[in-house]
Order: sequence, then structure tokens, then C-alpha cells
Amino acid sequence: MRNFEFYTPTKVIFGKDTHLQAGELVKEQHCKKVLVHYGGQSARKSGLLDEVFHSLDEAGIAYTELGGVVPNPRLSKVYEGIELCKKEGVDFILAVGGGSVIDSGKAIAYGLANPDIDVWDLYAKKTTAKACLPVGAILTIAAAGSEMSNSSVITNEKGWLKRGYNDDLCRCKFAILNPRLTYTLPQYQTESGCVDILMHTMERYFVNVETMEMTDSISESLMQTVIYNARILMREPGNYNARAEVMWAGSLSHNGLTGCGTGGGDWACHQLEHELGGMFDVAHGAGLAAIWGSWARYVYQENPDRFAQFATNVFDIPYDGLSPETTALRGIEAMEEFYRSIQMPTNLRELGLELTDEQIHQLAFKCSFEDTRTIGMFKQLNMKDMEKIYAMAR
Amino acid sequence: MRNFEFYTPTKVIFGKDTHLQAGELVKEQHCKKVLVHYGGQSARKSGLLDEVFHSLDEAGIAYTELGGVVPNPRLSKVYEGIELCKKEGVDFILAVGGGSVIDSGKAIAYGLANPDIDVWDLYAKKTTAKACLPVGAILTIAAAGSEMSNSSVITNEKGWLKRGYNDDLCRCKFAILNPRLTYTLPQYQTESGCVDILMHTMERYFVNVETMEMTDSISESLMQTVIYNARILMREPGNYNARAEVMWAGSLSHNGLTGCGTGGGDWACHQLEHELGGMFDVAHGAGLAAIWGSWARYVYQENPDRFAQFATNVFDIPYDGLSPETTALRGIEAMEEFYRSIQMPTNLRELGLELTDEQIHQLAFKCSFEDTRTIGMFKQLNMKDMEKIYAMAR
Repeated sequence: MRNFEFYTPTKVIFGKDTHLQAGELVKEQHCKKVLVHYGGQSARKSGLLDEVFHSLDEAGIAYTELGGVVPNPRLSKVYEGIELCKKEGVDFILAVGGGSVIDSGKAIAYGLANPDIDVWDLYAKKTTAKACLPVGAILTIAAAGSEMSNSSVITNEKGWLKRGYNDDLCRCKFAILNPRLTYTLPQYQTESGCVDILMHTMERYFVNVETMEMTDSISESLMQTVIYNARILMREPGNYNARAEVMWAGSLSHNGLTGCGTGGGDWACHQLEHELGGMFDVAHGAGLAAIWGSWARYVYQENPDRFAQFATNVFDIPYDGLSPETTALRGIEAMEEFYRSIQMPTNLRELGLELTDEQIHQLAFKCSFEDTRTIGMFKQLNMKDMEKIYAMAR
Repeated sequence: MRNFEFYTPTKVIFGKDTHLQAGELVKEQHCKKVLVHYGGQSARKSGLLDEVFHSLDEAGIAYTELGGVVPNPRLSKVYEGIELCKKEGVDFILAVGGGSVIDSGKAIAYGLANPDIDVWDLYAKKTTAKACLPVGAILTIAAAGSEMSNSSVITNEKGWLKRGYNDDLCRCKFAILNPRLTYTLPQYQTESGCVDILMHTMERYFVNVETMEMTDSISESLMQTVIYNARILMREPGNYNARAEVMWAGSLSHNGLTGCGTGGGDWACHQLEHELGGMFDVAHGAGLAAIWGSWARYVYQENPDRFAQFATNVFDIPYDGLSPETTALRGIEAMEEFYRSIQMPTNLRELGLELTDEQIHQLAFKCSFEDTRTIGMFKQLNMKDMEKIYAMAR
């Protein structure tokens, strides 16, 4: 197994009514003024925003607000947030929403704490951050894991580039996880979130190095928990326990725990999806589901035993001792069958994209940073490999 | 499931040669002078202390040292540490050892940061801490989990009272986990450590409330991992992977992860063992092993299904649908069989204690704080219950 670091300083407050503690939690941060950052109107209509404002008022915390964050959050909104916060003297960002809102909040926090750089330069990998304003989160979508992760992903409208930046500096000071806040999500978004959660573990699980039993068994447990509860949520969106299991799995899936000793993970599917998300604005989890099966079939022969372990331990598929390849393929099929059972796509057509050869080429060209990088660890993929996987997924 | 908080700010540096990073890690804490705190001579003889001093020298960190911490660490050593640190102007405690050394370091850190109180008053539950000096750990025994936990346990020689104090203030800033540092431990200590690790999860697992699937499955995975690798370490003490699995399980077992949603845990066995440790100075894990079976048989009928789940998911014992009690008892027997397989005691006699009725009574009297408190959550136990369990364990 590989050496590793594990660092998850985010204080998690989990359960019913926990969002009412927002004011107290912000107060512990000794800040002067808070930006309450959010997405569309659902947070307002549901009354959540009012409850948050009330909680801040009660704690005597001054605040300003900025809504309008969209999925695949935009750089222009980040710039708008930075300007607003400068004007208002904001020194704490409270993100109320899902991964897009938290990521947008993290980018604003980077921008404010690193005034000498264009914040996009972090995402373009031109420089690294020296500091980051403190961020807290009230989660309303179980999916991205940004509430406990060190990552954020922003889309630059110039060229529709979707790029991530990872740095421990941006880890949330606290994360309020109230499963009830996710009851009203559309089914498609709930299930897309479940795929995203699964993929954060699968990206770390499918590596081509000796792993840790402790990490493997946590990962397999997590995947089984999400698969089981994602199916329950298809028929019972108001099932508290199922919402809670998925929400907690979402945080654990991306806080580093499922990667301990595995050498960092593969992340090829995320890279491949980032181009889809940037160019076509698809739901992240659905995009991952549409790509995964093709990626898995393209790479599994590098280490069929690993895929066979996945099949056996996650889907209880009997291990075929004579042919781990057969077991591996049955595992890939089982995952795709699961995706279909929660109405997630298993190819790009089902995702709603009918792509031309030129578009496939363009995706691979962008994903390979114009044919200058490879992606993946389970199997290193160059631009040609990427093009083949996109084509397989058509 | 219950609402919960999860807070594990400790930065973990895990793997081969990681102790050589001690100087750098301390430097990141911006301190002026470090107390290097340790136990017996093994850390010196093995060359570990010299490597730590060298690493501090290279980072330009001033330090002083205090060794001599014994298992069931003593209050007198804590007082000695506080005086030394005051004199030397120490502002960071680096504990090099196992749980006893880290706990002693935490107590010293409390004492220095709360000069107005007698530090024992924290452990006697007379007051709470306002602050704590920062502590870091280089772990040499996988057992107590103190490197990531919020707890510390100190023994007061006056009355041989062994008492714990839990507070997030004392959570280590960093924990260096190098599995190789545990290679030279005597087998008894290695296996006693494995029991301690198991018990930190079992204390949280055996609760009489609705739990979380995610937490249950992590806990069951963790217990299986420790059981499997504890057996390997009986014949291969130098097996890196087995040492690593046990070491990481030790930290995860006690950092809060295995208690999420379970309402805090039972902890009766720990309380019962604390009196044994205080009065007879036994190895903590061995003391827990000697008590557990009797506790389990005394309480399991409160919720036989929970013990049956343990039997099925940890030991693969088939579930007897007509009688969960039978499955439950088979699980308890399987655990005791495991303890015997790693030469751990399953009663007080095997622990080396032949107790009189008066001593049994005395243990229960002290454990119940002179008949003024109950312990346990799976089943609340009063002084009479405690006396019966000690007697069953004879």
C-alpha cells in the first residue's frame, strides 16, 4: 500500500433541524460579515433561506447575499461574488446549496484571499493559492461531497472549460448536513447525486496498485449503502433514513477516507465528464453514469482481478476462479443495470446527446488539454484512448 | 438514527519513514519550544528518539524531553511535565509513544493552558478545560486511538483512580503513523492493542437505538479487518501490511467515525476495565478482553438482534431466524474464541487476577462512584449489576 495523508478538519453537524445552528456556528468563526451564497429560488421558496437569515440575526451576525449559482457554476458569478464581498467587507462565506454553490463559494473565498491573482489561474493550474477565506456549508444536495472535500470545480464561459482545483485551504470550517433539506429534490437530481457519490469512491477504488483492506472494505460498504438507498429513494423520496445514509456517504466518499493507501485514485471518468459538463451542461452524476461503463470496458483488462473483487464484494457476484474477466464483466453489467434501475443513463444517447465524430474529437482534444496530457491511473489514457471511450459511450 | 457531530481535525501522516517528517510538521505549528514526551527506554534503544531529535534539529526547533511515562499513565508524571514545561517555556507537546504517552501529553497540555485549575479536576469531572496547548503524536503502539481521539485517561495514585476526560480541545494537530515503529512490540502488547481497537468500535456498536447502515457497515468492516490481521500478527509480527491495517483501524476506531448516528455508545466495558487498570495495573486491552464476554452475556437479552447482527456480519455465523438469542450467543462465543486464539484472556483469572468477594465489591463500589452513578447504554448498569459482571468474569 502507498503512504498517505488524511486531513478532514471540517466539523460536521448532522441531523434534523441542524440548519438552525447556522448562526451559532458562524459566530464561533469570529467573523465580521457573512456572504450567504445560494443557487436558484428553491432555497427561498422552501423557507430555508429565511431560517438561515433568522439564525444569523439571532446570533447577531451581519450578512449580505448572492444567489443565482447554476449547476456547473460559472466563473462570471465567482467574479461577481468577489466584487460584492470586497465592497461589503465580507470575511466568511456561507454556502447554502449543493456542490455547485459550495464550489462557487470556495472560488470566491480564494479570490478574496489572493487579491494579486486572477482566481481562474488556480483552476487553469497556472498558480496555487496562498490562503482562502473561511467557508461553511449548509448542504441541500447529497452529491458532490464538496462540503468535506478539498476540491472545487468552476466552468469558464470563455471556451466552456470546466476545471477543478484541489487544496486543503478551502476545506469547509463546518458542514451542516440535514437530510430533510434534500426531500424536495427532483428524482433525477437525487439519483444523479447518488451516481456522483458512488463515483467519488469508484475513482479511488479502481487503481492498479496494492490497496488497503481497511480502505477497500469501507469503500465496498459505502457503495453497497448508496446502491441500496438510491433504490429506496426511487419510490420513497421522503424516507429520512435513506436520505441520511446517502448524505453521509456523500461526505465520506469525497473527504479522502476512501482513498487512504490507494495512491490517489484514477479520476479519468471525472476528467472525461468535465468536458461533457463544460460543453453540454449535463448533470454531473448523469454524465459520469453515461461514461463509466465504456471506461470500465476499455480498461478492465489491465487488472481484471480488481474489477472481479468489485463484482464480488459490491454485487455479491460469485467469483469465477477460471476467469476473473468474466466476473469483472458481470460486475460492470451489474453497475449499469443499477444505473438503469434508478433511471440514469449508461451512454451519451441516453444522456440526451447525439454527438458527431467532430464533437467526439473535440471532447478528446479538450480533455487531453490539446493532446498534451494523459489522464487515469488504472490505465493511462492519451487523446486517442479518450476519443475511443467517448465513441464507445455514444 | 440520532443526530451527531463528527470532528476529526488531526492531520494524519501515514506510512514508511513518516516519522522523519516530525520536524517539518512541528515547524508548521509555529511554536517556540517542544516537549518530547515518551515512555520507557525502547524509543531510545530503537534509535527512534534520536531520529526525532535530529528531525527537530534540522527544522531548527528547540526542545526539551521528559520520559518515564508508564502504562496507565500517572498523575504525578503529568504534574512533573507541567512544572518542566513552565520552566522551559514549552508551547508544543510532541508525544512519542502509545496511548499512555499521548494521554500524559494531553494532560500536561491541559495543565499548561489552564493554570488556574488542578488538572486532575478535569478527570474528576469537577470542571472543564478552557484551552489546551497543541499536541502532536508519533505513534508506536496501535491500540488506544488517542492520536485521533478527543479523550485521555490518567491514573491518580491517590486511591488508584483511573479516569478519563473527553474534549475536542486536545485533539492532536498531527499524528505520524509509521507501522514499522510497532514491529518490536511484545506479542502480548500487540494483541492487547488489537482488543482495545476492537473495543473502541464495539462500545459504539452495541447500542440499543436505531443505528446507521453506513456506520454499522464501516464498524463491521473494521472489526473484520482487525480480527483478520491480529491473527496474522501472531505468526508474522513483521508483516507491514498487517501492522498498517491494524494501525489505521486503531485511529478510525476511536476518532468518532464508528459512532456516527449511534448516540454515543455504551462504554460500560471501558468503565469496568478502568477500575481494574487503576487497582491492578493490567494492560488495558487485556483487561477489556477479560470483561467483555461476561458483560455481553449479562446484557445481550436487552436486544438479541443487535448481537445476532454482530455474529452474522462480523463472524459469518448463519442467522437463526427462530432464535436470534442463539445466534447472539454464538457471536459472543466466536469473539471469545478469537481472543483465545490471540492469547488474550476471557476472564479475570486468565488475566492473572484471583479476586476475593471483597475486592469484587470494591471494584463495583469504585466503578459506580460509591454507588452514585450507573454506566452503560445498551443496558444501564447500577452497582449491583457491576458487581455481578465482575463476579461472572472471575
